[in-house]
Amino acid sequence: MCGGIGSRFWPYSRTDKPKQFIDFFGTGRSLLQMTYDRMVRLVPADHILVVTNERYEQLVKEQLPDVKPENILSEPDRRNTAPCIAWAAYHIGALDPEASIIVTPSDHLIMREAAFEECVERGFDFIDSHDALLTIGITPTRPETGYGYIQIGDEVSPGFMKVKTFTEKPDLELARVFVDTGEFFWNAGIFLWKVDTIKRALAKYLPDLDGIFCSGADKFGTSCEKEFIDCTFPSAPSISIDFGVMEKADNVYVECADLGWSDLGTWSSLYEISPKNIAGNVTQKCNVMAYDSSGNIFMAPDGKLVVVSGLKDFIVADAGDVLLICPKGEEQRIRQMVNEVNQRFDDKFM
Amino acid sequence: MCGGIGSRFWPYSRTDKPKQFIDFFGTGRSLLQMTYDRMVRLVPADHILVVTNERYEQLVKEQLPDVKPENILSEPDRRNTAPCIAWAAYHIGALDPEASIIVTPSDHLIMREAAFEECVERGFDFIDSHDALLTIGITPTRPETGYGYIQIGDEVSPGFMKVKTFTEKPDLELARVFVDTGEFFWNAGIFLWKVDTIKRALAKYLPDLDGIFCSGADKFGTSCEKEFIDCTFPSAPSISIDFGVMEKADNVYVECADLGWSDLGTWSSLYEISPKNIAGNVTQKCNVMAYDSSGNIFMAPDGKLVVVSGLKDFIVADAGDVLLICPKGEEQRIRQMVNEVNQRFDDKFM
Repeated sequence: MCGGIGSRFWPYSRTDKPKQFIDFFGTGRSLLQMTYDRMVRLVPADHILVVTNERYEQLVKEQLPDVKPENILSEPDRRNTAPCIAWAAYHIGALDPEASIIVTPSDHLIMREAAFEECVERGFDFIDSHDALLTIGITPTRPETGYGYIQIGDEVSPGFMKVKTFTEKPDLELARVFVDTGEFFWNAGIFLWKVDTIKRALAKYLPDLDGIFCSGADKFGTSCEKEFIDCTFPSAPSISIDFGVMEKADNVYVECADLGWSDLGTWSSLYEISPKNIAGNVTQKCNVMAYDSSGNIFMAPDGKLVVVSGLKDFIVADAGDVLLICPKGEEQRIRQMVNEVNQRFDDKFM
Repeated sequence: MCGGIGSRFWPYSRTDKPKQFIDFFGTGRSLLQMTYDRMVRLVPADHILVVTNERYEQLVKEQLPDVKPENILSEPDRRNTAPCIAWAAYHIGALDPEASIIVTPSDHLIMREAAFEECVERGFDFIDSHDALLTIGITPTRPETGYGYIQIGDEVSPGFMKVKTFTEKPDLELARVFVDTGEFFWNAGIFLWKVDTIKRALAKYLPDLDGIFCSGADKFGTSCEKEFIDCTFPSAPSISIDFGVMEKADNVYVECADLGWSDLGTWSSLYEISPKNIAGNVTQKCNVMAYDSSGNIFMAPDGKLVVVSGLKDFIVADAGDVLLICPKGEEQRIRQMVNEVNQRFDDKFM
């Protein structure tokens, strides 16, 4: 899944080059490329599909030259994750009705790759033998209020639990309780299922959405597929797979693992997972000389020198044409700022 | 006088283009050019001399194409103001021993130009009739701790007072007393004198320095002048005219005026004299959207968007390859930071 716009990472994440296409860590690989690198060890290269927005098709081709053009599914419109997943399920189903699918965001970080591989392999085994919608639960390492949590129920097989509830993002007090009980895991938005299982769930819980794809069932995998999608996709309800299916279905299971995972949803989450210097500052790419400054994250163009004094717990993100300076604790306001910048300058800084 | 390096305005003021060459206000004219514009209304254009460092000779020529090359005195070394002023006095004396001279920094701001013109014209009249070293005292508008003060003595002619003392930069408490008494004025570093008066003062109070120039008296105004300067100037003592002459001489007078003057010596002084928006923020050139932010000064490349939240009383100076974020109250540390940057990156960001 590669169609998001990542507005919380503005001004680095921009409409014409969102977060998943950015090399956040200066390693030479974008988050999308890192996701591809991770998946190609688990799945044959020509079985990897990228569902993205039309406007990013060219970027995907540039960043993932090994992905064949026919494996890039370009959405004509942004409709959240359920239509994206439905399309992929119908497309894959047309190629192989028995296929197992893993669905993953392209803009998350997983640092423990070996653990991830083992987890996914075990997950594929599980869905081979269970009619399951399987999600990956991440062992929480802190009372994070920015994530949804999964409460686990009975263990049905070693390491696999029935999901009791999905929760919205909790407040800090509740998040602490969640972590202390040991019953709650972060919802990573990574799913495994068989084609048949997800199609039945879509038909049951999102019949309107499923109806659209079902009506073109003979077109998937053919030269008519794209035209069909262009005509019908924009009328699909905009809804997430979590809200539309996972929270409603009764065959939802979770495999819990400690993967060094972060959704990199916010500057603070990037701060959390990044190595810090002795003053607790995180530096991405740029040179920083910090005086009386701690708990900050600095990001600036390659080679730029940032000299700061007296700054505590701030995000300093210099994207060349835009400089953002914002307390880490206020970053939920970045979305609002982006909206106001958009109103005032049209698309100039988007 | 145009040879300074303006390190307190780093990262805008740089070794290869110091403060006086910068268009701080986005008006299309640098501080040097604004100084020229001010002087050319008072002095015939071909009587204006620019004393600068060799390395800035080309910049001066570019910014002041109307100044003839022979009117640019290029110092081979930085030796503070006394040698600069001595050279100019000997140079002018060779052309016209009866000349009156006004000496002015090229990196200050004067906003009340009509008052300045009137002040200078009255000053020239005064030194025509008095054997005086005349300095301009600025009516203080606040208890500024960054300036030297002049204490006035007896009035010798309307508007002209004997100088009682020059003071070093006071602490805040003392500065408040200074302002309250009405006896203290800011030392603007603008001087008026006759050639003969300053030469006698140099001979009396800085005999070593004067001896150097005196030894080449026949060379000034000839084709041998520059070679003589290149040989001897570097051996001149590095000393300011204030410390070397003005604080010691007994024929020092002051003309006090309210000129809308600022030495623009610091970011804070730029903040003080600049128009502020309702939140008390000053914006130079760039677009700024400020949330919960007040008392800041923002400077960034033309057209750059700066979005800030939760910043109080800071300098934010983005010079393209360097970003400085520093509390206004800490800016005396900028010099130290510049030194450390210099040590760490050689001349790269100087």
